[in-house]
Amino acid sequence: MRFRFKAPVPLALLRRPLPAGIHSVSSSSFGIAFDIDGVILRGAAPIGNSERALRRLYDDSGGGIPESRRASDLSNLLGVNILPSQVVHGHSPFKTLLNRFENEFIVATGKGEPAVVMSEYGFKRVVSIDEYVSHFKNIDPVAQYKRWTTVQDSNFSRNSKTVSSCGDFSQSVKAAFVVSDPVDWGRDIQVLCDILTSGGVPGKKLGDQPPLFFAADDLQYQAAFPSERLGMGAFRIALESVFNRIHDKPLEYTSFGKPNPFVFKNAETILQHLLQSIDRKNTLVNGPSFRTLYMIGDNPFVDVKGAHQAGHPWFSILTRTGVFRQRDNHKEYPANVVVDTVEDAIEFILRREDGAGAGAETML
Amino acid sequence: MRFRFKAPVPLALLRRPLPAGIHSVSSSSFGIAFDIDGVILRGAAPIGNSERALRRLYDDSGGGIPESRRASDLSNLLGVNILPSQVVHGHSPFKTLLNRFENEFIVATGKGEPAVVMSEYGFKRVVSIDEYVSHFKNIDPVAQYKRWTTVQDSNFSRNSKTVSSCGDFSQSVKAAFVVSDPVDWGRDIQVLCDILTSGGVPGKKLGDQPPLFFAADDLQYQAAFPSERLGMGAFRIALESVFNRIHDKPLEYTSFGKPNPFVFKNAETILQHLLQSIDRKNTLVNGPSFRTLYMIGDNPFVDVKGAHQAGHPWFSILTRTGVFRQRDNHKEYPANVVVDTVEDAIEFILRREDGAGAGAETML
Repeated sequence: MRFRFKAPVPLALLRRPLPAGIHSVSSSSFGIAFDIDGVILRGAAPIGNSERALRRLYDDSGGGIPESRRASDLSNLLGVNILPSQVVHGHSPFKTLLNRFENEFIVATGKGEPAVVMSEYGFKRVVSIDEYVSHFKNIDPVAQYKRWTTVQDSNFSRNSKTVSSCGDFSQSVKAAFVVSDPVDWGRDIQVLCDILTSGGVPGKKLGDQPPLFFAADDLQYQAAFPSERLGMGAFRIALESVFNRIHDKPLEYTSFGKPNPFVFKNAETILQHLLQSIDRKNTLVNGPSFRTLYMIGDNPFVDVKGAHQAGHPWFSILTRTGVFRQRDNHKEYPANVVVDTVEDAIEFILRREDGAGAGAETML
Repeated sequence: MRFRFKAPVPLALLRRPLPAGIHSVSSSSFGIAFDIDGVILRGAAPIGNSERALRRLYDDSGGGIPESRRASDLSNLLGVNILPSQVVHGHSPFKTLLNRFENEFIVATGKGEPAVVMSEYGFKRVVSIDEYVSHFKNIDPVAQYKRWTTVQDSNFSRNSKTVSSCGDFSQSVKAAFVVSDPVDWGRDIQVLCDILTSGGVPGKKLGDQPPLFFAADDLQYQAAFPSERLGMGAFRIALESVFNRIHDKPLEYTSFGKPNPFVFKNAETILQHLLQSIDRKNTLVNGPSFRTLYMIGDNPFVDVKGAHQAGHPWFSILTRTGVFRQRDNHKEYPANVVVDTVEDAIEFILRREDGAGAGAETML
């Protein structure tokens, strides 16, 4: 139920492997956005006949990709050979904050290399919480019980290059970003509380809470473990509940993940750009538009709710392969259609679009 | 503001160094319980002239300790040479649960060696969450981002010895214990939610929530960092807020830490035993009792509130060296007396007791 869209791309656009992305195939009047975790993959394993389902979409859509290449694309269908611009990560919208924080001192947290992600978006003075913490002795009272290897240390040094221009770590932090799932919740909750309650410098009393941004707000998601795992939304709840107990003003934050309509608007824009870029016959004189954009997801609270809030042209299809497992439609956030698997979802879409008589263009 | 009492012990009782404890000196009618963190120590450093204050107590109380030994005791005054039975840890009351869980499969978490602590209390089938997790593949979705050294691994194997009799890890967990401050909040919140929402086995649906016990409930405490650090109470709030969002019944738990009156009753009992054990003249025919027990603490919410709830003979003295820093008494939980430092507290007690005309017996 993490938010990553995918759709096939023309071969010319391929550059380097990425974990997820958006492909587009040919030009016509509908598109499909796939939620990955819990719909196409569980952990690293395909589910719901997702390979066969995607292969079928390629077969039906034809369009622009050499036969030989299609096979290799399909064999790698779970996210390789995709342009960075085609990936809709939860943190992609952080780019829109560049005008506010490009030259401000900011901290980023989350698994992987959050400071590098932000740096690549153009933020010039970003540090990871990993590095930030290393400049505040005793800030993490249980740090002595955590013994990281040099693997982590090498990330430190890599981040250090990114942030070498940050200089004095006693300066005020102007914003905090949760880029991906936090790894060390206790440390991050402590240090974010330190930064946010103090007005930007742990241990001081400077003023108002600096802005806090989350890339996602999913309470739980379906990963490799049989039952759902806690997501960034759960971390936000933990942070918020602690913060609100130790501070006199409630935590203020902005979450950019699903179900935020911004994410769907952003995905639509990216799909339109892709569609334009492969419109070699220039048939889309007035710019591309979609009669329908299908959102195939497994989580009523983010995928379905988000698609409904985004409104036209989004159409929600809920699978039973992830967070949602019930027989009947979800009560609070009913999808337009409920199916068992992503393969059933594709079957439904192709039949519906075929019936509609449109040129069978798909985006996934 | 962590709960560890201290008082001088007769030399004969000394055995091995422990981080904190209770000492007793001679027999008379008042005792003193010291909160350590924020009153006597901040991190590992003495504060509030605590060394001079304690030395003064020894001088005034006299009683049973050779001159040469007193100096070395005083030089080590922050917690060495104390009997295990004299240490009031937050988890000490877990012993009282032995009749319920002695032979049940239970899990324990917290910094240090929580399973060893429980094992030493007599629990026969206890595993640390560290080890428990190692038997559930993919249970921690960000585990790959945590790279523990062999130092941690050696703890694993040591715990393994403790729990080798536990056998099948798919059996139902009958209770969970938070023994000390959790180190890996995200993992612990995830796994405790797994155990507690499932009725005892992650990924299953077995029944009601197994009991959950906390050794403390301090929201924040004063450690080495200039501002307060989040304590076990903050972890409990984070766990509870997440649990209550993903489960249909609210989290049930029991917290044994201050301000729970049980802790004060327990401390009083221990002090009475100590008093009896050093009553070589058998003057305490009817068993020892205290006219006054002084609680010197830095946290109105746990030290003062707890002493008041415990009632007679507890008398609360609040210092300004830790969590509490205000000029006037705390509004919600006013102490009997507010002073700047532990030295001022001792000064107050000695003058008060001297005025009362009692034999100057002290316990600290």
